[in-house]
Amino acid sequence: MKRATEAEAAARVPEASRVLWSTRVYYQHTDAGGVVFHSRYLDFMECARTELLQSLGFDIGQLARERHVLFMVYSATIDFARPALLNDTIGVSARLAKVGRARLVFRQEVTRSGELLASGDITLACVDARTLKPVAVPSGIRECLEELADSLTGSASGTSAAMPGQS
Amino acid sequence: MKRATEAEAAARVPEASRVLWSTRVYYQHTDAGGVVFHSRYLDFMECARTELLQSLGFDIGQLARERHVLFMVYSATIDFARPALLNDTIGVSARLAKVGRARLVFRQEVTRSGELLASGDITLACVDARTLKPVAVPSGIRECLEELADSLTGSASGTSAAMPGQS
Amino acid sequence: MKRATEAEAAARVPEASRVLWSTRVYYQHTDAGGVVFHSRYLDFMECARTELLQSLGFDIGQLARERHVLFMVYSATIDFARPALLNDTIGVSARLAKVGRARLVFRQEVTRSGELLASGDITLACVDARTLKPVAVPSGIRECLEELADSLTGSASGTSAAMPGQS
Amino acid sequence: MKRATEAEAAARVPEASRVLWSTRVYYQHTDAGGVVFHSRYLDFMECARTELLQSLGFDIGQLARERHVLFMVYSATIDFARPALLNDTIGVSARLAKVGRARLVFRQEVTRSGELLASGDITLACVDARTLKPVAVPSGIRECLEELADSLTGSASGTSAAMPGQS
Repeated sequence: MKRATEAEAAARVPEASRVLWSTRVYYQHTDAGGVVFHSRYLDFMECARTELLQSLGFDIGQLARERHVLFMVYSATIDFARPALLNDTIGVSARLAKVGRARLVFRQEVTRSGELLASGDITLACVDARTLKPVAVPSGIRECLEELADSLTGSASGTSAAMPGQS
Repeated sequence: MKRATEAEAAARVPEASRVLWSTRVYYQHTDAGGVVFHSRYLDFMECARTELLQSLGFDIGQLARERHVLFMVYSATIDFARPALLNDTIGVSARLAKVGRARLVFRQEVTRSGELLASGDITLACVDARTLKPVAVPSGIRECLEELADSLTGSASGTSAAMPGQS
Repeated sequence: MKRATEAEAAARVPEASRVLWSTRVYYQHTDAGGVVFHSRYLDFMECARTELLQSLGFDIGQLARERHVLFMVYSATIDFARPALLNDTIGVSARLAKVGRARLVFRQEVTRSGELLASGDITLACVDARTLKPVAVPSGIRECLEELADSLTGSASGTSAAMPGQS
Repeated sequence: MKRATEAEAAARVPEASRVLWSTRVYYQHTDAGGVVFHSRYLDFMECARTELLQSLGFDIGQLARERHVLFMVYSATIDFARPALLNDTIGVSARLAKVGRARLVFRQEVTRSGELLASGDITLACVDARTLKPVAVPSGIRECLEELADSLTGSASGTSAAMPGQS
């Protein structure tokens, strides 16, 4: 990968934390505590990851049906900072933090008017849709995602730099 | 439909309103209004229908994977009488009200300590799991279900009698 | 209410069936049958009703917290025509079909590229958020909604005309 | 942490992995990949935590309404080992791993016929239901939970020993 100039890197920063999916909080997201139920944040994060892949040209519906490729959540770590309330408008970002042979790590944030509500690291495993066994990420997809991950870190130096969300 | 004797009516009551599935109301079922969110009742009803079919020897997971038979909801009518609250224990019944060539009608109730909270008529269409096109209910399943529907109405005389929930 | 001219009525038609809320179908909406799970359509319809009320200046979060007004689903009838699939983009409309003293009836549709997937009549009851007992729709809200319902039917003649979805 | 004797370890096993909540996997839990959608595991874990508190005499509905005490999820870490499928029967355990001044840590597992499907550490923060601000766990509840946590670790020596799930 060619080394990005500083100007290019600067231009990419907003890209990295860009809201990819946004929603109003509806009754169905809330619970009797008056706040958004905690597992709904994982649902919101799924939407943002799907939109990120879609924006790169990967339709996960087609991938599953035609190429038998599923990305299943392998692990998730999520921290809750402030609760979202009914009728709030929230935004969700997804940044590709690491591309492995058979796994992808996303760093995600849920915000409301720029204020952080929740953040998480979501690791996906690539599996065969028919057997549900782990498989390598198809090479065409992997190359495209590696390029994206590298461009976001502004570094060609490899693994540690590619996972800023873990530091 | 012939008029049921009192003895027949009495015999049908426990069968007809038998709770097939029961749950505590957890936070995930409630919304910011402090009550169970309305679409959760449809989820609860699905659980009771599944248990009814399971109790008759039909495993809907196997039916889908091995015989490519799906029962999809074709229409639903639901009335809400009283709200369920956090930590309530509720029961859900499912009675087979009609067996058609390609459709099944269930009459369902959600109760709390015998008090009616919600009731609904749920019509399922039998479809091929690969094409999602309507197909006839497989004959082995249909015969078993017809027998059940007949036994619940206390009559072997056929279709109109088989749908007491609609009268 | 003044009688609408034909031109005004014509101008309002698209308004009546206008998509108020749209979403991509994500994995969380689907089930193992490969289609959107039936109760999710009720969730989608809730979003469109909320957007309709919001577009009229009613924030249901504020209504609940400050004026103790909740709109709870009182009954629902829903018909499913075609299944939505993973990654489909669907639109949801909400038309106010009837305004009663303590109830509102909405006629709603879920479409994909103009093709009807599901339709439903959803009746809401106005309740006090503290007691969950039925109350009259607050007069300011009722007048605004009656005006909307009347304008949609292009008629000032009352109840039957105000509920075209029921005919 | 002091090394547990074999007898102590043996005594802890059944307690630690006791299933508190069990369910069949219904269509509503699955997604188009044919497996249980990942955020549903958090829902299942919520059910088991509620049952654990309930078994100790704490009704979280009453706590919220009468004492204005909410336990909100503060952070969650979850690992997925194997997918659950439609119609599987799964069990969910919840073990209190740590009792802090204002937080509780639960170690939870989802199993199918003894086989581990998912495990997680869920940290709850105690908040005031009216302000959603952090508060200390009410002393009566805290003492009871500390006793439980101590009994599970086989040690009365305090904090570090109280969190075996973290080692």
